[in-house]
Amino acid sequence: MPSALLPASAIPPPHEAHLLARYRHIRAATETLAADLSDADATVQSMEDASPAKWHLAHTAWFFEEFVLAARLPGYAPYDERFRYLFNSYYEAVGARHPRPRRGLLTRPTLDEVLAYREAVDDAMTALLATAQTDAEAALIELGLHHEQQHQELLLTDILHLFAQNPLRPAYAHELAAAVVADPRPAPEWIAFEGGVASIGHAGDDFAFDCEGPRHSVLLVPYQLCSHPVSNQQWCEFIDDGGYQSAGLWLSDGWRWVGEQDVQAPLYWEERDGAWWQMSLRGMHPVDPDSPVTHISFYEAEAFARWAGRRLPTEAEWEHAAQKLPATGNFAESHALRPLPDRQNTSGVLRQMFGDVWEWTGSAYLPYPGFRPQAGAVGEYNGKFMSGQMVLRGGSCVTPESHIRASYRNFFYPHQRWQFTGLRLADDL
Amino acid sequence: MPSALLPASAIPPPHEAHLLARYRHIRAATETLAADLSDADATVQSMEDASPAKWHLAHTAWFFEEFVLAARLPGYAPYDERFRYLFNSYYEAVGARHPRPRRGLLTRPTLDEVLAYREAVDDAMTALLATAQTDAEAALIELGLHHEQQHQELLLTDILHLFAQNPLRPAYAHELAAAVVADPRPAPEWIAFEGGVASIGHAGDDFAFDCEGPRHSVLLVPYQLCSHPVSNQQWCEFIDDGGYQSAGLWLSDGWRWVGEQDVQAPLYWEERDGAWWQMSLRGMHPVDPDSPVTHISFYEAEAFARWAGRRLPTEAEWEHAAQKLPATGNFAESHALRPLPDRQNTSGVLRQMFGDVWEWTGSAYLPYPGFRPQAGAVGEYNGKFMSGQMVLRGGSCVTPESHIRASYRNFFYPHQRWQFTGLRLADDL
Amino acid sequence: MPSALLPASAIPPPHEAHLLARYRHIRAATETLAADLSDADATVQSMEDASPAKWHLAHTAWFFEEFVLAARLPGYAPYDERFRYLFNSYYEAVGARHPRPRRGLLTRPTLDEVLAYREAVDDAMTALLATAQTDAEAALIELGLHHEQQHQELLLTDILHLFAQNPLRPAYAHELAAAVVADPRPAPEWIAFEGGVASIGHAGDDFAFDCEGPRHSVLLVPYQLCSHPVSNQQWCEFIDDGGYQSAGLWLSDGWRWVGEQDVQAPLYWEERDGAWWQMSLRGMHPVDPDSPVTHISFYEAEAFARWAGRRLPTEAEWEHAAQKLPATGNFAESHALRPLPDRQNTSGVLRQMFGDVWEWTGSAYLPYPGFRPQAGAVGEYNGKFMSGQMVLRGGSCVTPESHIRASYRNFFYPHQRWQFTGLRLADDL
Amino acid sequence: MPSALLPASAIPPPHEAHLLARYRHIRAATETLAADLSDADATVQSMEDASPAKWHLAHTAWFFEEFVLAARLPGYAPYDERFRYLFNSYYEAVGARHPRPRRGLLTRPTLDEVLAYREAVDDAMTALLATAQTDAEAALIELGLHHEQQHQELLLTDILHLFAQNPLRPAYAHELAAAVVADPRPAPEWIAFEGGVASIGHAGDDFAFDCEGPRHSVLLVPYQLCSHPVSNQQWCEFIDDGGYQSAGLWLSDGWRWVGEQDVQAPLYWEERDGAWWQMSLRGMHPVDPDSPVTHISFYEAEAFARWAGRRLPTEAEWEHAAQKLPATGNFAESHALRPLPDRQNTSGVLRQMFGDVWEWTGSAYLPYPGFRPQAGAVGEYNGKFMSGQMVLRGGSCVTPESHIRASYRNFFYPHQRWQFTGLRLADDL
Repeated sequence: MPSALLPASAIPPPHEAHLLARYRHIRAATETLAADLSDADATVQSMEDASPAKWHLAHTAWFFEEFVLAARLPGYAPYDERFRYLFNSYYEAVGARHPRPRRGLLTRPTLDEVLAYREAVDDAMTALLATAQTDAEAALIELGLHHEQQHQELLLTDILHLFAQNPLRPAYAHELAAAVVADPRPAPEWIAFEGGVASIGHAGDDFAFDCEGPRHSVLLVPYQLCSHPVSNQQWCEFIDDGGYQSAGLWLSDGWRWVGEQDVQAPLYWEERDGAWWQMSLRGMHPVDPDSPVTHISFYEAEAFARWAGRRLPTEAEWEHAAQKLPATGNFAESHALRPLPDRQNTSGVLRQMFGDVWEWTGSAYLPYPGFRPQAGAVGEYNGKFMSGQMVLRGGSCVTPESHIRASYRNFFYPHQRWQFTGLRLADDL
Repeated sequence: MPSALLPASAIPPPHEAHLLARYRHIRAATETLAADLSDADATVQSMEDASPAKWHLAHTAWFFEEFVLAARLPGYAPYDERFRYLFNSYYEAVGARHPRPRRGLLTRPTLDEVLAYREAVDDAMTALLATAQTDAEAALIELGLHHEQQHQELLLTDILHLFAQNPLRPAYAHELAAAVVADPRPAPEWIAFEGGVASIGHAGDDFAFDCEGPRHSVLLVPYQLCSHPVSNQQWCEFIDDGGYQSAGLWLSDGWRWVGEQDVQAPLYWEERDGAWWQMSLRGMHPVDPDSPVTHISFYEAEAFARWAGRRLPTEAEWEHAAQKLPATGNFAESHALRPLPDRQNTSGVLRQMFGDVWEWTGSAYLPYPGFRPQAGAVGEYNGKFMSGQMVLRGGSCVTPESHIRASYRNFFYPHQRWQFTGLRLADDL
Repeated sequence: MPSALLPASAIPPPHEAHLLARYRHIRAATETLAADLSDADATVQSMEDASPAKWHLAHTAWFFEEFVLAARLPGYAPYDERFRYLFNSYYEAVGARHPRPRRGLLTRPTLDEVLAYREAVDDAMTALLATAQTDAEAALIELGLHHEQQHQELLLTDILHLFAQNPLRPAYAHELAAAVVADPRPAPEWIAFEGGVASIGHAGDDFAFDCEGPRHSVLLVPYQLCSHPVSNQQWCEFIDDGGYQSAGLWLSDGWRWVGEQDVQAPLYWEERDGAWWQMSLRGMHPVDPDSPVTHISFYEAEAFARWAGRRLPTEAEWEHAAQKLPATGNFAESHALRPLPDRQNTSGVLRQMFGDVWEWTGSAYLPYPGFRPQAGAVGEYNGKFMSGQMVLRGGSCVTPESHIRASYRNFFYPHQRWQFTGLRLADDL
Repeated sequence: MPSALLPASAIPPPHEAHLLARYRHIRAATETLAADLSDADATVQSMEDASPAKWHLAHTAWFFEEFVLAARLPGYAPYDERFRYLFNSYYEAVGARHPRPRRGLLTRPTLDEVLAYREAVDDAMTALLATAQTDAEAALIELGLHHEQQHQELLLTDILHLFAQNPLRPAYAHELAAAVVADPRPAPEWIAFEGGVASIGHAGDDFAFDCEGPRHSVLLVPYQLCSHPVSNQQWCEFIDDGGYQSAGLWLSDGWRWVGEQDVQAPLYWEERDGAWWQMSLRGMHPVDPDSPVTHISFYEAEAFARWAGRRLPTEAEWEHAAQKLPATGNFAESHALRPLPDRQNTSGVLRQMFGDVWEWTGSAYLPYPGFRPQAGAVGEYNGKFMSGQMVLRGGSCVTPESHIRASYRNFFYPHQRWQFTGLRLADDL
């Protein structure tokens, strides 16, 4: 059985439960993820796109301090005035900040000092949560918790990237066993969907990021989706067929990227004695043919689809298809590294839509009709990134389960692939 | 009267006229544009995005040689085997090519030698056009003519860029008088459009690039467009209000671009003694407050719209609104530098939709539903650029009039602004 | 009282003493320097020129393993075969190595694991040193000890650079008190030297690097040296006189460097409320006017000399003048941060020649007549760096005292200034 | 017979002849070199190190205008005020200037306009030279003439670089026949020189650049020089022996340069069907085994010498050896492309010391003892480049003969090789 990164008891109460309980659960989960990291592991920044684990730990505390505690308690004294500068990520409206490419130079504060900072923020938040909240306050705290969950995923993707740079290829968690796939993976099937006017986007009282709405109508032409994400086995066929050497399969930007970066396989794949191995959170191991391919760029996803004679789904197609499925991640509120076998083997329907890999869509990350960013500094959360990025859907094996939903719009630049990114084929009917 | 770059006699016959006559007209127009350039003017490349005029002249000949003459006449001997390498732009399928950033190093062949090359290709094409064409052949020749027209525009935008790098600020054409605006520019109005299912995209027998189709339905929410493009006067207000210094107005990528490039005004604007001057094809002159602002990036257009409390139109909104208007450029098949006064002063309707400035839309350049690239090497023409670029609509003052149509999808990267790019505001109703 | 970084008992036995005793002392001194560093402090690499403290600790162990243990004991099994790759610095002859700019990505092995590696190497070396050595073996071990001492200095300069990147400006050692300067610093004087044929370069049985020889004759014209290095006070005058804004004072390469890097003061200087502060190993503190200026590039040293109407000494002039002085560093085998007051106040002679700042000379680092690199891989130690670098003389406040001698040739690129670099003025007579 | 680029009548009068006659001859020679270049050839800049021919033509006129005409005739009106900005090279003292990397963007002024500029300057200079000169004025004019000659050489090296970037590999001058080598090249011999105190550096009334003095004593150890420069044949042996793949032969900076630039042969060499071809001013042709190797960097020269078990000479050794030889270039005041056969075949002495290839020495370009730059802006001529460059001696086949002398110090960065650079082996005795 694939092991979860968190004990079952760590499953947070549902959204409607007491906010304090959820706060405690989610905050503790972040620290659990960092529990086995050394001070050095938590400090080094392996590339500009990634951040140190320590920075994730501190920044998520800063978020509550800056947007909740300071706003709610006008006389609130920051834990350390200098942390406002060090741990702001990109909020222009709240002042200057430490430059992103230099996050890895902060050997001080130490990991222990950052954990103490988190504890102090938790104490203040606990006191605050013991009192009544306005709706606006509760919404900000909820935002902070989802923000925290995003950084849980980033902490893991960034640690994997760091460890993959080390010639020793250390494992983040050795005990993460591979999924036991009892039966052979069922053959992929095509699932058809009717066209017409459909509704996508978030509506209702549950939490969603501002960019997930407003809910609106879209016009769909009849389409079909593949039952499974593309597997490593399929990807090997693409490689063997010269996919990375065939200019005609690639977008112009993608072909240049392939040439400049000398890309020949998914990120973290290495050829050893004629076989493909993969670096993952459990260290180096042979590529599992049945698992969804992951750590591919949009360019690769797009080229693969062309090679297969298919295309990527639009985000509207994906969401429309996903709306009737339970948004169940791989593990109860956990960060697992492999799909659950029982979910994989269910037949006849869309499988592995949630919690396996983020699936690249063919849609650019742009505002929905009528979109207005949230007021205040947190309005920078999503809206200002609506250029140059592509939408991904579904959630990955390191996405917290309670963070997954059909309307969720993840977004990355087309060349980025250190996230757990994969694809599912689509086609016209 | 604003002077045209070409005499009235240069107006090409309509599409349905004899292809040979159109071929001759359009090819000659290209040479006319280069007539006053020195060998050096025509050779230097001012940046990687731009190409030398001589290269445009040669590449458009190469296009007919490679895709028409060589295909139609199997025994056709290339004019110079080496030109296949020198003047291929980006067609991977037809072999290796001279690297784009090194186009400006080709002092040989000389401008005269390139003109002789063009003449030889014209002779062969004339012979070919004297015979009957299959539909496929005619389509390829038509594609070549539209390709030629695209490079007419690029030749002008690239010469302007080159001359703007020269501290002497030479004029491309001194005699290009400014437009005579008899009456004051009418105040911009808002024109409303109903929502619902509409059709966009090209259909029919007229020429269109593959990316303009297939025609398909889109769902529009009620919207409004401004009657005029944003003017230089309005842009000055944006500058004076600190638009370039207000992080909150900008997309994240745009704000970084502003900082890295130290952007403070549209490209080609210079402040002299407290007033804004502009470099254009007629040299340096004060910025005309009533003309549409041009040479702005998508980032600037987007920030302006946010500053104005509005938004950019989607390409579907723009095309839907434009479908009933005559696609009349500023000048009969000419390359002018200013709007015609009579078009500017008509009131009550959308004005300056065609042939003034390319208008940035809020839509990413992506395939329409059901899009399939053209077969063969020319399939690289449009499809492979569908990543990272934004759509522009309408045509500019240097776009040949017969090259303008409502379904035309131009595309550039969000930071590019050496084309004649502007914007028109839109909003929800 | 200026505190030493090491207790007095740490003074190593003189060269002629038992090699084992010296080995133990010098090796232990390295570890003492790292004793207060966290795992993270010891792991991060702040720039390509600098290396992590952990890397210094491991690389110096690797040196003994690779060049002594492996050579002496053919069957010697490396402590960890992978360390041969990770901790080779630049020895092409002994195989591939981890790229220098990626040294900071090695969060594993941990600091503790590296210390265990050192201990294992020390055990093997202790066993080896208990037996008789050939002269060649002893020479290699001696080389390893001097190599170790070089890295002691680098460990400190690199930690300072790392801490200076941190907005918190942490101190490496708070207790390092500033020197107590009882009396005012005596006014600098000029000390004259006769010209003629002189001998420089190392000769004799004491240890020296290969590049310090052979001893050879040089022809000197009469010259004079300033009694003191240039002080911070003098440097402030240079700044106030517009030194950094006067193109005419600078070498062409230097002036470009000043412009590109926006250099306005020595490295680690910051202006705070109109006063200059300096980041040092004891944290931020006001610049001490009487201390030698340090952390300046060759370009700055050269420009200062021109501004002062003087010049830099040649390395031959410097060594000739230094030959009669005792090579006494600031502290007995320690790494101190300030000159000793009693040395500073002696009058009438050259002062602070050794152990205060590395003094830039006007000599390029080139081979002496008859120079032949040492045989074998260690021949890469010095010879291959003889291009593009300038010679510095004297030793700094973080140079181990037993590592200082008149013939010592240090060398860095003209733009580098993270070492403790300063200058002493010279002139013709 | 190798053809000269200039007719015999172009030989300038000796230095002591009337300055006006020399002015006319040398200025005309520059224009002759550009006579066959098109406007485009003369305008394009192929890399930052090189300048367009048109720029050389204009800059050398600017030099006379700025430093002679403007100084001598206070009311002198510049030919075009804007040219002061466009054609200043690097003189900080005389104001701002057009950035070097953008010299190739100046399609205007045209080549004809620049020639008219030169004519106007010549007219003014002719009038000036008809009057009596002070010694200082005559010295400045003489400096201008030597400056002009330097740019004659640069014009040729830069045109070669430009043409070598063009896949058509155009010839600058087809009619330049290869040298007729009647007899086999004599075997190289070693010529011994005694050591001791020698004098080098310029003294006397003849013209020399400031950096060639003052004349001073040097101490030489006995040494030997090879009778010939290293030949292409010898270089092929170095290549065949894996010279470019052997890290141990290279300086550290050189080895990195080899790797980053993927250097495998001298610049302008290409392998075609297993044989080496070379691009030169007469186009592509097979490498001539007996000619001196050229277009090599200092790094390559140094590596070759190590491979050969020898070393480079110091500049003092070279000059001492050359002092007794006649400084005769290949052709009377011409720019030839091959050594003269009769000079090549003389036996028993140093051959091809002057006018074949610039010979890299092992000496850094640094001030001689007692060096003081010339007063005024022309003091920037040499002194400010004394960092990071190496000295070359002897003059090349494109150096004007009257510009060659034993004390001449040419200097380039160690990686540069677009000049006609070669080497001569030296060794200790």
